[in-house]
Amino acid sequence: MNQPISRRAIPVGILGASGTSGAELTRLVEDHPDLELRFATSRSAAGRSLCDLDPACPDVPLVHPDDADLGSVELVFTCLPHGASAPIVKDVLAAGPRVVDLSGDYRLRDAGLHTSVYGSPRDPAVAERAVYGLTELTRREVDRARLVANPGCYPTCAALGLAPLVARDMVDGPVIIDAKSGVSGAGRSPKTGTLFVSVVDDVRPYKLGAAHRHRVEIAQTLQRVAPDGKPAPTVIFNPHVVPIERGMLATMVVRTPGHSAADVLDALRETYAGEPLIEVRDQPARIRAVARTPRAQLGVSDVAGTDHVVVTSTIDNLGKGAAAQAIQNANRMLGLPETLGLVPGVLARSDSP
Amino acid sequence: MNQPISRRAIPVGILGASGTSGAELTRLVEDHPDLELRFATSRSAAGRSLCDLDPACPDVPLVHPDDADLGSVELVFTCLPHGASAPIVKDVLAAGPRVVDLSGDYRLRDAGLHTSVYGSPRDPAVAERAVYGLTELTRREVDRARLVANPGCYPTCAALGLAPLVARDMVDGPVIIDAKSGVSGAGRSPKTGTLFVSVVDDVRPYKLGAAHRHRVEIAQTLQRVAPDGKPAPTVIFNPHVVPIERGMLATMVVRTPGHSAADVLDALRETYAGEPLIEVRDQPARIRAVARTPRAQLGVSDVAGTDHVVVTSTIDNLGKGAAAQAIQNANRMLGLPETLGLVPGVLARSDSP
Amino acid sequence: MNQPISRRAIPVGILGASGTSGAELTRLVEDHPDLELRFATSRSAAGRSLCDLDPACPDVPLVHPDDADLGSVELVFTCLPHGASAPIVKDVLAAGPRVVDLSGDYRLRDAGLHTSVYGSPRDPAVAERAVYGLTELTRREVDRARLVANPGCYPTCAALGLAPLVARDMVDGPVIIDAKSGVSGAGRSPKTGTLFVSVVDDVRPYKLGAAHRHRVEIAQTLQRVAPDGKPAPTVIFNPHVVPIERGMLATMVVRTPGHSAADVLDALRETYAGEPLIEVRDQPARIRAVARTPRAQLGVSDVAGTDHVVVTSTIDNLGKGAAAQAIQNANRMLGLPETLGLVPGVLARSDSP
Amino acid sequence: MNQPISRRAIPVGILGASGTSGAELTRLVEDHPDLELRFATSRSAAGRSLCDLDPACPDVPLVHPDDADLGSVELVFTCLPHGASAPIVKDVLAAGPRVVDLSGDYRLRDAGLHTSVYGSPRDPAVAERAVYGLTELTRREVDRARLVANPGCYPTCAALGLAPLVARDMVDGPVIIDAKSGVSGAGRSPKTGTLFVSVVDDVRPYKLGAAHRHRVEIAQTLQRVAPDGKPAPTVIFNPHVVPIERGMLATMVVRTPGHSAADVLDALRETYAGEPLIEVRDQPARIRAVARTPRAQLGVSDVAGTDHVVVTSTIDNLGKGAAAQAIQNANRMLGLPETLGLVPGVLARSDSP
Repeated sequence: MNQPISRRAIPVGILGASGTSGAELTRLVEDHPDLELRFATSRSAAGRSLCDLDPACPDVPLVHPDDADLGSVELVFTCLPHGASAPIVKDVLAAGPRVVDLSGDYRLRDAGLHTSVYGSPRDPAVAERAVYGLTELTRREVDRARLVANPGCYPTCAALGLAPLVARDMVDGPVIIDAKSGVSGAGRSPKTGTLFVSVVDDVRPYKLGAAHRHRVEIAQTLQRVAPDGKPAPTVIFNPHVVPIERGMLATMVVRTPGHSAADVLDALRETYAGEPLIEVRDQPARIRAVARTPRAQLGVSDVAGTDHVVVTSTIDNLGKGAAAQAIQNANRMLGLPETLGLVPGVLARSDSP
Repeated sequence: MNQPISRRAIPVGILGASGTSGAELTRLVEDHPDLELRFATSRSAAGRSLCDLDPACPDVPLVHPDDADLGSVELVFTCLPHGASAPIVKDVLAAGPRVVDLSGDYRLRDAGLHTSVYGSPRDPAVAERAVYGLTELTRREVDRARLVANPGCYPTCAALGLAPLVARDMVDGPVIIDAKSGVSGAGRSPKTGTLFVSVVDDVRPYKLGAAHRHRVEIAQTLQRVAPDGKPAPTVIFNPHVVPIERGMLATMVVRTPGHSAADVLDALRETYAGEPLIEVRDQPARIRAVARTPRAQLGVSDVAGTDHVVVTSTIDNLGKGAAAQAIQNANRMLGLPETLGLVPGVLARSDSP
Repeated sequence: MNQPISRRAIPVGILGASGTSGAELTRLVEDHPDLELRFATSRSAAGRSLCDLDPACPDVPLVHPDDADLGSVELVFTCLPHGASAPIVKDVLAAGPRVVDLSGDYRLRDAGLHTSVYGSPRDPAVAERAVYGLTELTRREVDRARLVANPGCYPTCAALGLAPLVARDMVDGPVIIDAKSGVSGAGRSPKTGTLFVSVVDDVRPYKLGAAHRHRVEIAQTLQRVAPDGKPAPTVIFNPHVVPIERGMLATMVVRTPGHSAADVLDALRETYAGEPLIEVRDQPARIRAVARTPRAQLGVSDVAGTDHVVVTSTIDNLGKGAAAQAIQNANRMLGLPETLGLVPGVLARSDSP
Repeated sequence: MNQPISRRAIPVGILGASGTSGAELTRLVEDHPDLELRFATSRSAAGRSLCDLDPACPDVPLVHPDDADLGSVELVFTCLPHGASAPIVKDVLAAGPRVVDLSGDYRLRDAGLHTSVYGSPRDPAVAERAVYGLTELTRREVDRARLVANPGCYPTCAALGLAPLVARDMVDGPVIIDAKSGVSGAGRSPKTGTLFVSVVDDVRPYKLGAAHRHRVEIAQTLQRVAPDGKPAPTVIFNPHVVPIERGMLATMVVRTPGHSAADVLDALRETYAGEPLIEVRDQPARIRAVARTPRAQLGVSDVAGTDHVVVTSTIDNLGKGAAAQAIQNANRMLGLPETLGLVPGVLARSDSP
């Protein structure tokens, strides 16, 4: 009758735990009441503890990927760079476990698009089975998936705010997305561009317009929800690096002729009614409200005298934008409550929400 | 025979020297080879030194405005809040000196617009004479002005990038301006919103869409340069506070049907050919390139597969966005070389450039 | 049979919830499994939600202190400024609840010292009963206390590292404490000195040597643990503000003739063996390891060729330095597990540790 | 009679211009009225412009060291890592030019100490001739030097405050130096420890006590100025990295029995009377007062009730701590005014100050 005793710990593993997303995921798994971490791998830091890399990380031993016993776990999180992830995902699936893949390797459905954007090979049969795991929008598919492609941070942030409007055919013309991301999105491998002296006192625009890979991923989601026969709006995507560690803001301008800002607010509120991780409000979204949390915040502002509205969206790029959404997806795949281990007070129950 | 001896120091004064713009202007005047600071006033900090307020500021005594001898100077810089500036500008002009007014009080030409945007009274006759001092675009008028309304930081940053395109009738549809400003733009008076703990680890959107006063100022400049009979594009203006002290970036999306990004780049290069303070390039503009300088940087990026381009513009909000442009304007009003005291190597000569 | 149902929620209140410590405490109480927040007061922000003040705070309504029903709770946390707290603590105790006072009003035992340091009156009878709650060092007294004076942030950080050495009579000569604190320690009321533009790009020394109130509090703790008849070492205390939001580091130099760094390390390890919130290590302590946690980290480094050692200590100034330690103390006063609500996995049990 | 015409530009070169010190030096040379930069080398970035590495740097072409014509210049600045610098300094001297060496290779006089601290070989004959260039303390030797070893940043910061006290025999017992340095001191090569995500929200102690190379350099300077026959005080040196780009603070505790804080202040004021780059004050020194300048600030605070005082010292680690002091030294070696190119208003005159 005592829940802690009856509760079964589900064994999981993490491949690529030493990057910023992998480390955040390791922290979440360590604190998760129903998951048990069997291995966390790192090729470059095998033999060390994760907290040697960053004292804010938990003290978890890193093992070489060759020493990870894939057969010992029910689910594997892959936090490897794109290109490196694809073949390993195939191997893991063949060994039995389910997979949540945080790389971009299985996110794009169209094979030609994948090749032109990423340029690296992947397994067509595996790609066929992959489910895109933007949980609030695709959770029924996630429930049955053996492989979930965990969305990118920018695509999560942008699509949460735009997809409901496109789905209701409220948008006319291009969507203009101006995104500002904390530096942790660039990972922990040493590069000149992510040094403190390169990032501080600056806001750096990069890959503007159509040059960032995530633009295609956003467009795919918008097309997926667009009414039958309607092309999704053109996406203009301007990403920036800002001198903060965690968190991300997208400021998005859309033309919604015939629909007021109040209509847009209603559409978002209707879409996310009852969602524990999504807050919709009539004020601009704030990074400070979601940093170090699994949540997203969406805000709607009018542009007086025009038929445009501004939709703002914030997430933690390592949280809802990576590791927390991976937990959300894994919880569903494993039959656990969706936000278990993410929201204080949500303990394991037999019935999923 | 000795130049320093033969050079005439022109006496000037600063009203409102203790704010962030006033302090930066005081620093520039102190280092200016041909200007001599006769008084720097502060109602709240009279009797103290400017460097008591911020050790990065020069050691200049602040006097009460009642103790400023307006008749002793040839030019006065007013760095007072809008509303407070208007009546004082009138008094100063009546006393004889020329004025560069850094407030918003005389920037908007249309009296009704001024009232609806600022809500504070100003003198119609003075307003009639005021010249808007976006130096590169209006320098011939500045030369003859007794009162120059120094532009706002956002309007300087945005208009430098957009005005040449509007003037050439290259833009169709609204211009979408996403602006990111350092905190010094909010001044030095203590407010909860500008505390370190409020600003750090965040990017704060505010007054989105049509709500910021500077939107109207940008629109006025675009209308001024628009071809005869053509309405200027609608301005959608989304400002943000970023956790940096100085500098500002505007990321601007415009539709330019029939004109490529290369055409846009050519237009900007043609406009600013020979300008010592404006750099145009085919890479995104960078804040780090202009922070703590009087310069602006403009960049052009294409949006492949669309007829949009992204124009980026950076300035130091206290430099080209306030104090340095004020010096530029004052230099012209006083018959000095335009960039004297701003660019190393530019010493006073009898002939203006 | 269901634990959440059978678990009794203990009603508590917070006076002064809108400051940085009060807000952090509110967050901890909200997430605490066995405490139920009945009121959170703020004189200046009554009627608003805490998250209006900072989006990182929980959405808790703030009420005017006159509307707080003191009789409805078992324990009150007072997060008021010193001077303001003393009379209210007396009133609350008279009304029945126990009190954890986060101000400095009842920390100093010596009445004359209190007056000379704080200059504000307090109730002598209340002061007599107050227990200084540096939990690891005084928990047996805390268990029986009706009023706990919660230690200051600097005194917690410094004393955790020094007290074990003084208690063992290992220290000869003065202790030199160089402390670096995040800005949140200065609270949320707007002051010029805590503006972003005042704090960024700087490390500000203040109240050096003997001028900071916390120096006396540190000396009191060292004297308390010193062997009978021995005077405690002189404390030289140099605090600094650093441009981070949360966390604090004390770098402390002590002369320990006859005792090596290894001996000092042993002394600390022995003192804190089994303590869930204190980690002792042979590397310098790190702020990143403790920020946003209730924990402290202590490190020992030798000074080769001398008989000095360097002890480093880190805490979150709002965590172990304020709100988390307040929860530790409250848990003990209420008969709950000491780290309940602070450490994941510690759920309420009937038996205290 | 016209100075600009008669002024002779002195050709100089920079070896290792792409690091943070080298880049700052390049900026200073570019703005220097009497120096002409003939080459700036970088092995890793040859063929690029310096501003490609950091947009805050000037647009100066970097050439491969093999393409630098040593014979074309009168003075070479070497900004290479220690170990790499020593043999090149010898080659440059043999080729004719004077040298200011910013590495540690020729700073320590004692050959055995050099070997134990740096472990890399250097030329004994060259070492014999090297002059340690802490300009205010050694300028008469600098004037005659063909090789100046430019001091380290920490040693400059600490020795400016301590040397006058040791020279007057005012100090008894060890000096405790707690130093906080901006990240630019660690250079621009990508390392995990200097990533934004490693540095932000932290203050990192490292090489505490006796482990940092600069401790020996400080001790050497103190020994040099100590009265005959007196050993210099023991140096305990605790360096920290703080999340700022530029600037450095040393908070130093010394016991000065028989000498009050006022006496210490007098000693510093007397030492630095008339020095244009050193400010002495009775308030703690501030980083914001010296960042991005060639200046140092020194402050003295008492420790009431003790015979200790606290001396604070601030410099820009890349300014007075590296590149600006290198210019000071070079100016003297070349017969130019010492602060030419460093302080606005100091133009070249035939007579040195």
